[in-house]
Amino acid sequence: MSILVVGSVAFDSVQTPFGKVEEVLGGSGTYFSTAASFFADVSLVAVVGEDFPREHLDFLAGRNVNLDGLQIRPGRTFRWKGEYGFDLNEAHTLDTQLNVFERFAPELPEHYRDAEYVFLGNIDPELQLKVLDQVRRPRLVACDTMNFWIEGKREALLKTLERVDMLLINEAEARQLAGEPNLVRAAREILAMGPKTLIVKRGEYGALMFSEHSIFAAPAYPLESVFDPTGAGDAFAGGFLGYLAANRNHDEGCLRQAIVFGSVMASFVVENFSLDRMRELDCAEIEERFRRFKLLTEFAGIG
Amino acid sequence: MSILVVGSVAFDSVQTPFGKVEEVLGGSGTYFSTAASFFADVSLVAVVGEDFPREHLDFLAGRNVNLDGLQIRPGRTFRWKGEYGFDLNEAHTLDTQLNVFERFAPELPEHYRDAEYVFLGNIDPELQLKVLDQVRRPRLVACDTMNFWIEGKREALLKTLERVDMLLINEAEARQLAGEPNLVRAAREILAMGPKTLIVKRGEYGALMFSEHSIFAAPAYPLESVFDPTGAGDAFAGGFLGYLAANRNHDEGCLRQAIVFGSVMASFVVENFSLDRMRELDCAEIEERFRRFKLLTEFAGIG
Repeated sequence: MSILVVGSVAFDSVQTPFGKVEEVLGGSGTYFSTAASFFADVSLVAVVGEDFPREHLDFLAGRNVNLDGLQIRPGRTFRWKGEYGFDLNEAHTLDTQLNVFERFAPELPEHYRDAEYVFLGNIDPELQLKVLDQVRRPRLVACDTMNFWIEGKREALLKTLERVDMLLINEAEARQLAGEPNLVRAAREILAMGPKTLIVKRGEYGALMFSEHSIFAAPAYPLESVFDPTGAGDAFAGGFLGYLAANRNHDEGCLRQAIVFGSVMASFVVENFSLDRMRELDCAEIEERFRRFKLLTEFAGIG
Repeated sequence: MSILVVGSVAFDSVQTPFGKVEEVLGGSGTYFSTAASFFADVSLVAVVGEDFPREHLDFLAGRNVNLDGLQIRPGRTFRWKGEYGFDLNEAHTLDTQLNVFERFAPELPEHYRDAEYVFLGNIDPELQLKVLDQVRRPRLVACDTMNFWIEGKREALLKTLERVDMLLINEAEARQLAGEPNLVRAAREILAMGPKTLIVKRGEYGALMFSEHSIFAAPAYPLESVFDPTGAGDAFAGGFLGYLAANRNHDEGCLRQAIVFGSVMASFVVENFSLDRMRELDCAEIEERFRRFKLLTEFAGIG
């Protein structure tokens, strides 16, 4: 099954306590597409500048990511520069250059419009709405957002939320969106805004999935070497939606397994800079880490 | 089976965003004993002043906590005053009055010395060693500590660690003790100091249990009303050791279930000030919440 994703494709410059990279491949759309591509076909809607190298396009195409919706516009590609301290949970943005992303207007090629699974990456909610206007009859729409839009474009964001099935955000964003410090209550208020499912990403503490009658808690995989957390949330979303699309099943059991596959993909991404860990990843490793998540969490009926 | 615990018995004055209490029953020994008493017999070693009211002794005795090792000394009982902001993960200590606790020298009544399960609450590691010198042949010794002792009494603490089976501390303490920011590596270094099992308490994010060949991750129970986190870590330890003592079994499955029972007890304690939630708690509620932990975490084989 095909997943449509709209998001950023960028050059990232990142410094962590463990190293430093300059202008490497990044962006929410890139991380999502690559992670999801291990499970399903992906169609990417994004924009890059004329400086975007052929090799990155070849990499994505090599992962079966359809690039017909990737616009190449005069100017420079979006650039982000950030650093992390020993507390790898929070990125400190040093510089953002929107460049061609500033005038991005997502346009879906005709054959994208029948997409059954849609992921609206963290972009202006007005653009997210424009994407939703162009898709015909999606089975499932998920979206991401951030503090900048929650504060600055609340009305448009609330319109988006009325039209999505799932929202994936981090803890602070959930509290901010609901205006409520208690996460369980915040989740209830967010579910009343439209999404049937809320997934709260908690970095090294894992994720919580809230729906009307159930809460699911998944840990993050305890890693000895976390090199660079950039893209972990987008890879999580890619693994999550990829697994759902591959199974075309959204029951509670499948949603929970999808959360774990999302956590698996996030756990790989942080093991190296950029998407480098995913470049050498294979399905056997993904299955093996899923199995390790089971060993990590089960407590009933063992001994 | 009987558990021996040494720890503090105190009057707490606590302010949270949800209310305020003055001089209520508190202390690590009190929280531990009460939580453990739902699973096993408990013998408490502690000290209080002459101002300690009969009703608190009656409460503990009513929960089958043996008080033969509770010294009543001239002077005032230990007092702690703290507050929490909306981020309930961290207590801000406003005042500590050690009072009779300052000269506390744990003395075990003869019939305490055959205790099979021992919990060394968060007190001076020199006193923890004195307790270990007085017990004969314990099956299992667990201990807690804190930044103050890690920094100020490192030598004595390392001696204690050589003689305990399990260490229960929070995340920051684990990193500080090992001098290593990565928790998985920190755990390996701490296991090399003596304990066969390390339990890292992460507040609202749950707990991790590390042993030589395995890691177990348990979430905290997502609660709508967290009133007062005071005592959660000690109630966790009480539920954990209580369950182990009741089952006299320390295999991996039993340890994992014990972690969840610890989390269950912690989840109740934070629902009200002081030990008030445990005063009205029954075993059916404990079993029911354990069942809900299963529903919260399972992802394999459901659908």
